[in-house]
Amino acid sequence: MITLLVSPQDFEAAEIAVEGEAYRHLFRARRAEVGDPLRLVDGRGSARAGRIVRIDRKAGWIEPIEPIEELPANEPALRLTLLVPTLRPERASWLVEKATELGVAAIRFLHTERAPRDFGSGTLDRLRRVAVSALEQCHGATLPTIDGPHGWSGLGDLAEGLERRWVLDPGGDPGLGAEPETRTAVLLVGPEGGLTEGELATARSLEFHPVALGPRILRIETAAVAGAARVLL
Amino acid sequence: MITLLVSPQDFEAAEIAVEGEAYRHLFRARRAEVGDPLRLVDGRGSARAGRIVRIDRKAGWIEPIEPIEELPANEPALRLTLLVPTLRPERASWLVEKATELGVAAIRFLHTERAPRDFGSGTLDRLRRVAVSALEQCHGATLPTIDGPHGWSGLGDLAEGLERRWVLDPGGDPGLGAEPETRTAVLLVGPEGGLTEGELATARSLEFHPVALGPRILRIETAAVAGAARVLL
Repeated sequence: MITLLVSPQDFEAAEIAVEGEAYRHLFRARRAEVGDPLRLVDGRGSARAGRIVRIDRKAGWIEPIEPIEELPANEPALRLTLLVPTLRPERASWLVEKATELGVAAIRFLHTERAPRDFGSGTLDRLRRVAVSALEQCHGATLPTIDGPHGWSGLGDLAEGLERRWVLDPGGDPGLGAEPETRTAVLLVGPEGGLTEGELATARSLEFHPVALGPRILRIETAAVAGAARVLL
Repeated sequence: MITLLVSPQDFEAAEIAVEGEAYRHLFRARRAEVGDPLRLVDGRGSARAGRIVRIDRKAGWIEPIEPIEELPANEPALRLTLLVPTLRPERASWLVEKATELGVAAIRFLHTERAPRDFGSGTLDRLRRVAVSALEQCHGATLPTIDGPHGWSGLGDLAEGLERRWVLDPGGDPGLGAEPETRTAVLLVGPEGGLTEGELATARSLEFHPVALGPRILRIETAAVAGAARVLL
C-alpha cells in the first residue's frame, strides 16, 4: 500500500485534495487509481486508512475510510534528535534520507569550530523534500524536524528536556545504546577533524556522555546513521 | 596521519613506488611531502608506519620505518559478510562506502527473484575504488571483498564456514547483534519487495536466522548499513 504524507489539517478532513507535485508523484509516477486504498500519515506520528475517490487532470481526492481505522504508525518508541555539523549537500541529503527511514525525530544542524559553514539557500527545503519522500517510502508516520544551522552557543537549548545525551568521541565508552524505558535522546556528532577539547568540555558540562563507535574515523553522515541504527533499532 | 593502501607485496618491500592515480591523490590532492610519516596498510588487516623519502614529477617513494612498527589495524573482531541484491550504482556506491567505513569484510552481490539484474560493465571496479578510498579515509586495514552478482543457487556456498547467519525479514526476531565471541557472520538483505517465501525457506534451511530491523520498510542499502552498524560497532 502507498503511504501518503498529508498536512495535519487534511489528515482530519472529510476529503483531501492532492495537487501539484504530490499529484504528479501519486497519479503519474505511482499510477494510483480510483478505489485504491492509501495509508495516510500526518507527519506527527498518526496513520489511518484512506481511499482514492476521484481523479481529474489536475487533482485527485481522497476520503478517509469510515469508521476511522487507525493503522500502525511504525514509529520507534524513542524520539532521537541528531545534532550534526553542516556538511556537503549531497552527504546531508543521504543523512536525511537514512535517518528518516530509521525513524529519527529531528535532524538539527549545528555550527562547530571546525565546521562553521552555512548551507546554501534552498538546501533546507531540499532536505525536507528528501525526508518526505523517505518517510512515504519506508511507511513511517513522523516527519523529522530539520532545521539550523544553529549556533554552538545554543547547544544547551537544543538538548533541553532530552533525557539521554551522547556525544560521539573516539575516547568515549563503547556500546552506544538506549535503555528500553528511554523516551527522548540526543546524539551529537562532531565535524571532520572532531570537536575541539573546549567543545567536548562544554558538551560534557551539559551532561552529554562521550561514546565511541569503534576505532575508525567515520564520516559525519556515517557516524550519525550508524549511531541512529544502534539507538533506534 | 594519512593512511595509504598498498599491495601485500609492497607492504613487505624495502621501498614502495607510488605512481599514477595514487601519486596524484597523495602528492597533489593531499600534498604529502618528503619526510611525512604515513600509515601503510595491506588491505588484509595489517598496518605499519612508513615515511616518504623522495618525490619526483611522476612517482614518489616510501620506506617502511625501521624497526618495523606495527600500528593498530582498527579492525572489528568479527568478519561480517553482507549478501545484498544488485542495486542502482549510485546506491551501491553508498553502500560500499559506508560498509567499508564500518569494517565489513565482504560485500557480495546476489541475484534474487525480485532483483535479477546485473551490473553494467565497470561497476564492480568502480565500487572497489570507492572501497579503497573509504578504507584510507577511515584508517581501516582490511579492504572488503566485493564481488558478484552470484546466482541465488550459490547461497549455500557463500555462507559456507560462516558461524552466524542472519536474514532480514520483517517477521523476524528483533535485536540483531552478535555475541562477543562470534568471529564470522553473514547478513542477507532482501531486494525491494522482499525475498519470496521460497527464498526465505531456502535461507532458513541453510541456517539463516530471520531478524527484523524495526517495523519500517528500509531501502536495501539502509538495511545493510544499519545491520552492519548493529553487528560491528
